[in-house]
Amino acid sequence: MSQGVSLRQVRLAVDCMGGDHGASVTLPACKAFLARHPQAELILVGRAEALLPAAHWARCRVVDAPEVVEMHDAIEVALRRKKRSSMRMAVDLVKPDDAGLSAADACVSAGNTGALMAVSRYVLKTLEGIDRPAIATVMPNQRDGYTTVLDLGANVDCTAEHLLQFAVMGSALVAAVEGKEQPSVGLLNIGEEAIKGSDTIKRAAELLRAAAASGHLNFHGNVEGNDIFTGAADIIVCDGFVGNVALKTAEGLAAMLSAFIKQEFKRNLLTKVAALVAMPVLNHFKARVDHRRYNGAALLGLRGLVFKSHGSADAFAFEQALNRAYDAARNGLLDRVHVRIRDTLQAMPTQTLAGDNDNPKTITPRLTA
Amino acid sequence: MSQGVSLRQVRLAVDCMGGDHGASVTLPACKAFLARHPQAELILVGRAEALLPAAHWARCRVVDAPEVVEMHDAIEVALRRKKRSSMRMAVDLVKPDDAGLSAADACVSAGNTGALMAVSRYVLKTLEGIDRPAIATVMPNQRDGYTTVLDLGANVDCTAEHLLQFAVMGSALVAAVEGKEQPSVGLLNIGEEAIKGSDTIKRAAELLRAAAASGHLNFHGNVEGNDIFTGAADIIVCDGFVGNVALKTAEGLAAMLSAFIKQEFKRNLLTKVAALVAMPVLNHFKARVDHRRYNGAALLGLRGLVFKSHGSADAFAFEQALNRAYDAARNGLLDRVHVRIRDTLQAMPTQTLAGDNDNPKTITPRLTA
Repeated sequence: MSQGVSLRQVRLAVDCMGGDHGASVTLPACKAFLARHPQAELILVGRAEALLPAAHWARCRVVDAPEVVEMHDAIEVALRRKKRSSMRMAVDLVKPDDAGLSAADACVSAGNTGALMAVSRYVLKTLEGIDRPAIATVMPNQRDGYTTVLDLGANVDCTAEHLLQFAVMGSALVAAVEGKEQPSVGLLNIGEEAIKGSDTIKRAAELLRAAAASGHLNFHGNVEGNDIFTGAADIIVCDGFVGNVALKTAEGLAAMLSAFIKQEFKRNLLTKVAALVAMPVLNHFKARVDHRRYNGAALLGLRGLVFKSHGSADAFAFEQALNRAYDAARNGLLDRVHVRIRDTLQAMPTQTLAGDNDNPKTITPRLTA
Repeated sequence: MSQGVSLRQVRLAVDCMGGDHGASVTLPACKAFLARHPQAELILVGRAEALLPAAHWARCRVVDAPEVVEMHDAIEVALRRKKRSSMRMAVDLVKPDDAGLSAADACVSAGNTGALMAVSRYVLKTLEGIDRPAIATVMPNQRDGYTTVLDLGANVDCTAEHLLQFAVMGSALVAAVEGKEQPSVGLLNIGEEAIKGSDTIKRAAELLRAAAASGHLNFHGNVEGNDIFTGAADIIVCDGFVGNVALKTAEGLAAMLSAFIKQEFKRNLLTKVAALVAMPVLNHFKARVDHRRYNGAALLGLRGLVFKSHGSADAFAFEQALNRAYDAARNGLLDRVHVRIRDTLQAMPTQTLAGDNDNPKTITPRLTA
């Protein structure tokens, strides 16, 4: 476990070869990041020849990794056959030694998500009290803030207990990165169109209410898909299948609307003139919803901090992922997750939930020592 | 079962009291609809005093229903206590008699979705071969066409067999309303970020492949959330929880972007002038993605055609729901669903799927006589 990271410089390990563009994007991003963060150090991991430009940068060290996990590589390839990949070696750097110290405070990669999660899980292991790590990202909302959503695809079938763990981990993330100590948590559900939610969702709501009653969680209640963007809650928890579909649906709609608006402004000479006049306004709008600003998903629940950049990130976007990892490490995210999970589970009574009458389940929270 | 509806006038039963606005929206919509469809007849169901303006309209009959299912009414109230509601009486009108004839060919309501589904299921029952009715709607896509998505919330936990039934019903809908006899079907799944999908999704893919192999379905394969808007497949099937979240996420993002773009154009005098210049282009764009144009979800799998309008629909939107119900009835949607389900299930071998090795399940399609 990292110890008192806020008292010393934050050091990030960067997988410089991951993503669609590799070093041509990651190096400029790292250079800009170093310039903006005089307290930061970087360990750049990748093929030595690709990292030559960074050989003499200040506060920066280069680690040669001869292999690269390609975007199309199967998880097994990343895990078993490429043990000297830049991804694997970057994750290795955040693994704590027996004294609880690690070479880096967090690592950032734009590589294949499935591979990064598998490698991180294998190398770092999960924290006590966490059954499964989750992927959390932020999306902009109408209150000009961010909504943190998790899980986004790491877990396709979640139990109520997993959703509770996601809620606690998300709360730790928002507390660390945004400084809100008691962020509100919404449980993603569906509207009055059907019996509200599955048995899992109903049981999760009971667990979240119990955690809230013990003062360890700020549970807002059920939310619906549109609330990702209304900002009804700081954090929205859901299983990875649903979260992934919601995220990709939003990306697909944004892409379509963007394509349509371009087509409309290019329709004829008159609309092209209108485009020129409207350009500054449209650019302002575009900057406000620019998804690159929200780049950098957190892999939560591991014994080390790992951040995932979008594979297609450009240098600006990759730098945002570095920023998020830096903020999380500087504000002790790892310890925060550990402490919140321990405290929440300890405070919850071992209880029998009546959610499923035919098959009542005894929920025994896993307590950490 | 309705018989040869294309040979006679199409008659729709309209719940005139449903939705947020009741008769003040439904009556103008019905009037406009009648003017545009000289082959159509309407049966308007609602409180007699509210329907007075329509008392003497041609091709139109008024049925007095003393009760109204309110938007907040529980399903039980609609089902058990308001047996003379406009919703219930409108649905009653599409129920076939012993000779297979019904007073109306389809019914349309803007009432509470949960109540409408429950009442429709109770009154009409499901078609042979269908375990659960589903809700299908269309969304615009980048190919300037529509993507039909189902289920949207009627079923929160779906089996692979349910997803197959949704695929067949969706195909019948698109064939009837859009005239595409072999529309493509995509199975909503998540990307390479995790083991691809749950066991249910994997088994559903096997069933869909088997149906495609027998020539009864055009299975496109897996799709992701963004494909709702890329138009990769004509139909996308998913369980009701996921479909509902996807739909609401899209609504939420659209609302946020619309609010942001308005704010940007209202920022100062200069941006307001830009808005004036850009207005015609923006209006054209708005019309293109106007969700009112896609209003009218189909409740599929029942022994009668029921269409659901958005509760907040205005007269223009409600008229679109009437149009969709009219097209579906005129093109024999009910018979199409019946025949497609029968043919698909008959053609599929009783098979054992190896999807779950620990617990192999024998899939026995329910055959219709």
